[in-house]
Amino acid sequence: MTLRFALLGAGRIGKVHARAVGSNPQAKLVAVADAFEKAATELATAYGAEVRTIDAIEKSKDIDAVVICTPTDTHADLIERFAKAGKAIFCEKPIDLNVKRVEKCLAVVEKTKATLMVGFNRRFDPHFAAVRKAIDDGAIGTVEMVTITSRDPGAPPIDYIKRSGGIFRDMTIHDFDMARFLLGEEPVAVSAHASVLVDKKIGAAGDFDSVSVILETASGKQAVISNSRRATYGYDQRIEVHGSKGMVAAENQRPVSIELANEKGYTRPPLHDFFMTRYLDAYANEIAAFIAAATSGKKAAPSGADGLVALKLADAALKSATTGKTVRLDTAK
Amino acid sequence: MTLRFALLGAGRIGKVHARAVGSNPQAKLVAVADAFEKAATELATAYGAEVRTIDAIEKSKDIDAVVICTPTDTHADLIERFAKAGKAIFCEKPIDLNVKRVEKCLAVVEKTKATLMVGFNRRFDPHFAAVRKAIDDGAIGTVEMVTITSRDPGAPPIDYIKRSGGIFRDMTIHDFDMARFLLGEEPVAVSAHASVLVDKKIGAAGDFDSVSVILETASGKQAVISNSRRATYGYDQRIEVHGSKGMVAAENQRPVSIELANEKGYTRPPLHDFFMTRYLDAYANEIAAFIAAATSGKKAAPSGADGLVALKLADAALKSATTGKTVRLDTAK
Amino acid sequence: MTLRFALLGAGRIGKVHARAVGSNPQAKLVAVADAFEKAATELATAYGAEVRTIDAIEKSKDIDAVVICTPTDTHADLIERFAKAGKAIFCEKPIDLNVKRVEKCLAVVEKTKATLMVGFNRRFDPHFAAVRKAIDDGAIGTVEMVTITSRDPGAPPIDYIKRSGGIFRDMTIHDFDMARFLLGEEPVAVSAHASVLVDKKIGAAGDFDSVSVILETASGKQAVISNSRRATYGYDQRIEVHGSKGMVAAENQRPVSIELANEKGYTRPPLHDFFMTRYLDAYANEIAAFIAAATSGKKAAPSGADGLVALKLADAALKSATTGKTVRLDTAK
Amino acid sequence: MTLRFALLGAGRIGKVHARAVGSNPQAKLVAVADAFEKAATELATAYGAEVRTIDAIEKSKDIDAVVICTPTDTHADLIERFAKAGKAIFCEKPIDLNVKRVEKCLAVVEKTKATLMVGFNRRFDPHFAAVRKAIDDGAIGTVEMVTITSRDPGAPPIDYIKRSGGIFRDMTIHDFDMARFLLGEEPVAVSAHASVLVDKKIGAAGDFDSVSVILETASGKQAVISNSRRATYGYDQRIEVHGSKGMVAAENQRPVSIELANEKGYTRPPLHDFFMTRYLDAYANEIAAFIAAATSGKKAAPSGADGLVALKLADAALKSATTGKTVRLDTAK
Repeated sequence: MTLRFALLGAGRIGKVHARAVGSNPQAKLVAVADAFEKAATELATAYGAEVRTIDAIEKSKDIDAVVICTPTDTHADLIERFAKAGKAIFCEKPIDLNVKRVEKCLAVVEKTKATLMVGFNRRFDPHFAAVRKAIDDGAIGTVEMVTITSRDPGAPPIDYIKRSGGIFRDMTIHDFDMARFLLGEEPVAVSAHASVLVDKKIGAAGDFDSVSVILETASGKQAVISNSRRATYGYDQRIEVHGSKGMVAAENQRPVSIELANEKGYTRPPLHDFFMTRYLDAYANEIAAFIAAATSGKKAAPSGADGLVALKLADAALKSATTGKTVRLDTAK
Repeated sequence: MTLRFALLGAGRIGKVHARAVGSNPQAKLVAVADAFEKAATELATAYGAEVRTIDAIEKSKDIDAVVICTPTDTHADLIERFAKAGKAIFCEKPIDLNVKRVEKCLAVVEKTKATLMVGFNRRFDPHFAAVRKAIDDGAIGTVEMVTITSRDPGAPPIDYIKRSGGIFRDMTIHDFDMARFLLGEEPVAVSAHASVLVDKKIGAAGDFDSVSVILETASGKQAVISNSRRATYGYDQRIEVHGSKGMVAAENQRPVSIELANEKGYTRPPLHDFFMTRYLDAYANEIAAFIAAATSGKKAAPSGADGLVALKLADAALKSATTGKTVRLDTAK
Repeated sequence: MTLRFALLGAGRIGKVHARAVGSNPQAKLVAVADAFEKAATELATAYGAEVRTIDAIEKSKDIDAVVICTPTDTHADLIERFAKAGKAIFCEKPIDLNVKRVEKCLAVVEKTKATLMVGFNRRFDPHFAAVRKAIDDGAIGTVEMVTITSRDPGAPPIDYIKRSGGIFRDMTIHDFDMARFLLGEEPVAVSAHASVLVDKKIGAAGDFDSVSVILETASGKQAVISNSRRATYGYDQRIEVHGSKGMVAAENQRPVSIELANEKGYTRPPLHDFFMTRYLDAYANEIAAFIAAATSGKKAAPSGADGLVALKLADAALKSATTGKTVRLDTAK
Repeated sequence: MTLRFALLGAGRIGKVHARAVGSNPQAKLVAVADAFEKAATELATAYGAEVRTIDAIEKSKDIDAVVICTPTDTHADLIERFAKAGKAIFCEKPIDLNVKRVEKCLAVVEKTKATLMVGFNRRFDPHFAAVRKAIDDGAIGTVEMVTITSRDPGAPPIDYIKRSGGIFRDMTIHDFDMARFLLGEEPVAVSAHASVLVDKKIGAAGDFDSVSVILETASGKQAVISNSRRATYGYDQRIEVHGSKGMVAAENQRPVSIELANEKGYTRPPLHDFFMTRYLDAYANEIAAFIAAATSGKKAAPSGADGLVALKLADAALKSATTGKTVRLDTAK
């Protein structure tokens, strides 16, 4: 069976997903929508798809699933519309920047029994997935402490930052999801520190660019997250999980792994330049998992609820960083 | 422009090339031929191609290029036929196990001005290509010594070994090409040692499974090759180039790069299991280079002549190993 | 000039320092004191020194310097006695578990103008010192974020834990000093989480075994510390400093660096088993630095004030972990 | 028991051994002899020893053992003298550059039953010894192929080269011993290539600076050695042993193992600058092994016979490189 896709939003992340859909033998990209017709046309042409409006896609009988890559403030509305239209929905994170809006949206999804998957792509990275598998295999015993290092090569434009909901909801949210993925138990307390060290304009826009977070679960497991909007050496993405019987870690990835030795020492090339190359396999695996869920009727993961919990953790971190208090929250159901 | 391909031979390596052709946006797999119709049908179906006979392909006007993956003893004949038929030809190594037959075949290719590229895939591996680029960029000065380690996870079936022309012509031939690629100067002397250490049946079949080779160029540059038909830890493929100003090396690759630490130490997973996974990118890049040559009319590399020189080096190594003498040869034109 | 030493305390850490003194060409171990005469005699014999009482050492004219390795609750008294006696003093950390007692002790030291150095040995590790030097050389620009991972192979006896002042004052205190050493600016805020994950007996003794700490300086630089009393793979000691122009890190050390490859993967041996082997060079360098300070009259570092600040950070971390609030402190002068 | 040493030759390698003797608790350096009295005096003073003539040392009753670090052409004579004088003898490699002279010398040693150990220090390197131990523990099954990479940071003075016996007898001889140490079976065939790539003056002096060698044992095990008198990145010393069940390798060592990451990539410092620092531990372990042999009366290893075999392999390699033939030899007894 082939799942027929429409792509909503033909920007940077839209292109990433178009590629993942286009190279999956069980998927076909049928339609592309974008406010900028040129962007829609280019992407549609590259994958043999048509340009359609969102309204048309909503009514299209030859569309089984949508990939939502539009601006964040449209996500919740689109999820509700397409849930009602009976389409399977893959939505880029976050569902919304407002917890109440997300909860309302998820109520609609639940009522319609729509398949909804949220784009926490890193769970599908082969290296991170192998870490998870090592834990599941019992290789490190009981998980105790998680360390996540996540640094972007550079800050996004200030305009983006203003709309992003801030570093915790935009960037750290991926690490909150990864921490939950690895801890295997819900965090109940969050302590965070946040500074402006990279670019004062980010501070002027009301955001931070350098943050450290500690998460703690009810049983005392801890996760530490270190984020920066700066990394001169490439896209720094590392995880490490320490357990009662050992430790398992996923190291950074680089496009080519050669090493040059001379009088200055031994030098390996910089890391991947950003997520489009670093997580190429992850995006492909993610769409494959979505297709599997959509065609099997099984629950998609990460789910809308996963998106909601990550957002709550982001809100808690922001509150902790600004109040100087550990924020306790009940994310467990 | 799209290059229209026929694939001759739907076996293991045929599938590898079908995948490379199938995923290249400038290529289309039109037809597949194989003596086993089931194999041909399966592969053709997977890529939306037709099953045709070799005769039919020879006459097909909708075929621009052929990929020859049939048994070695058919390569030279097929190259001649398709050169005369005006098709661009990609042929798996070796062209033939007999130097004279290769020379005769290349004379036909030259006369017909056909595009011919020989399948030394490793030149197209991103990591090895980056080593070559580092040399070209002057990063290590003048090349002096090359070290190539190449070990297969296990020996092929004895039946294959009997038809293979022996380890030097079947396995080391890739390393001879790589040595030439990296030395940038033709070897003029070859010393080789060969033993049976892995499997006595290989010796009974008249072949070796463990060989060491030294190549030397006219100016005294040296390359050392270490081959084994055994590597319990995966497909061991390393190169190292030492020059007047430094050294550059490409290390082994593995499917996932995680590390597990416990009381036994720090363990990373085994390497790729064999060439189909290790050289996945190389095969894609190789076909892309072939398409570029075929559509531009520029000379393809590695060429038929490259295939011939590598074969001569293999013959020389065999002679050295069996006579106990360094074999001198004139491979430079 | 040779500095003549007396060693107070012939236990585990006393032996480490005896070795460092004994192998330094500018030092001579003259006397050893210990409540257990057998321990004192053994160590004295091994280094050609005499057994003397602390009283005798205080009056000895052939002693220039003392190394205090006695139980923590005797440190402050001994520092005061030997400062008044005109000896140069090297004291194992901590000076005392009580901030007020430390301050009183340091007032005596200041009045007597005695040389006092506190045993934060890690500053003298060649690898960590090279990280500090890279920062000083401007290799990473302005320091922004520090990550310190420090895990002990196993927990000490419960008896020790009860007397230790708790994990923050006993173990993390080294990391607080290292954070200050690397940040180059005083932390003004501390957030900490602490759990009992390794051994419930540790919890029953009123202590924790797994802690995460965030330190923040006035300008917003951050340091993250991850501690555990468990590491099955050896003594885990890593630091990483992220700055505006790059990152510099010191990786773990192991006794032998071989690698074994087989069907299970690539395995390197476990790390050093604990501080006596991991920091062998650091202890030698530390005593050399003490000798240099004692003989030159220059200020010793880390000083008593450094010991005091680290203790204040430990107290703050404990308060944060137990109150759920970020603790602000003024450690800067 | 303390072994009382005299050191003959206070040059570069003499200082290395003086340090090893001086820091060994079971050894005492009693006397130093050198043609240059200043060199002898300096070294003797540093270790609390006396300056004596070789004649005086020969007669000294307070000397149990000698370390011979004089020029090569004096080694055999001195060994014979001190064997007759009843001293235990540690002699730097080689015993002599002439096989017949070595054989005559060893006959004297055998007759006198003197303890003689030859300075193949690398066997005592902790990393290489751990490789040997892994083999002995069965970790890699049966040894099949050995790869030794050994490159000096730079060439010695031409004057030294002229007296050295050539690269095979001076430099590769260490690798011949290491190959034997690891193969566990005597080489019976040698093929070598030798070039002048680093410095033409070396060629003018009748020597080579870049060599590749293959050794083969009777059962077909192979060892490959790659040598260069140039390595811009430090003292390159690697070994790798491939067996029926796996592979074990010892990687290079560097003084500090930090890593710096920036826009140019990830850089680790160069390797040790030469053997004095790289093999510091090896020299200490070597003297300890000699002391153990001398005091126990057990056979010292590597023995004079080991020195002889390594020299024969060097002669065979030179013959192979200059004749273009594999040289067969019977080194097994």
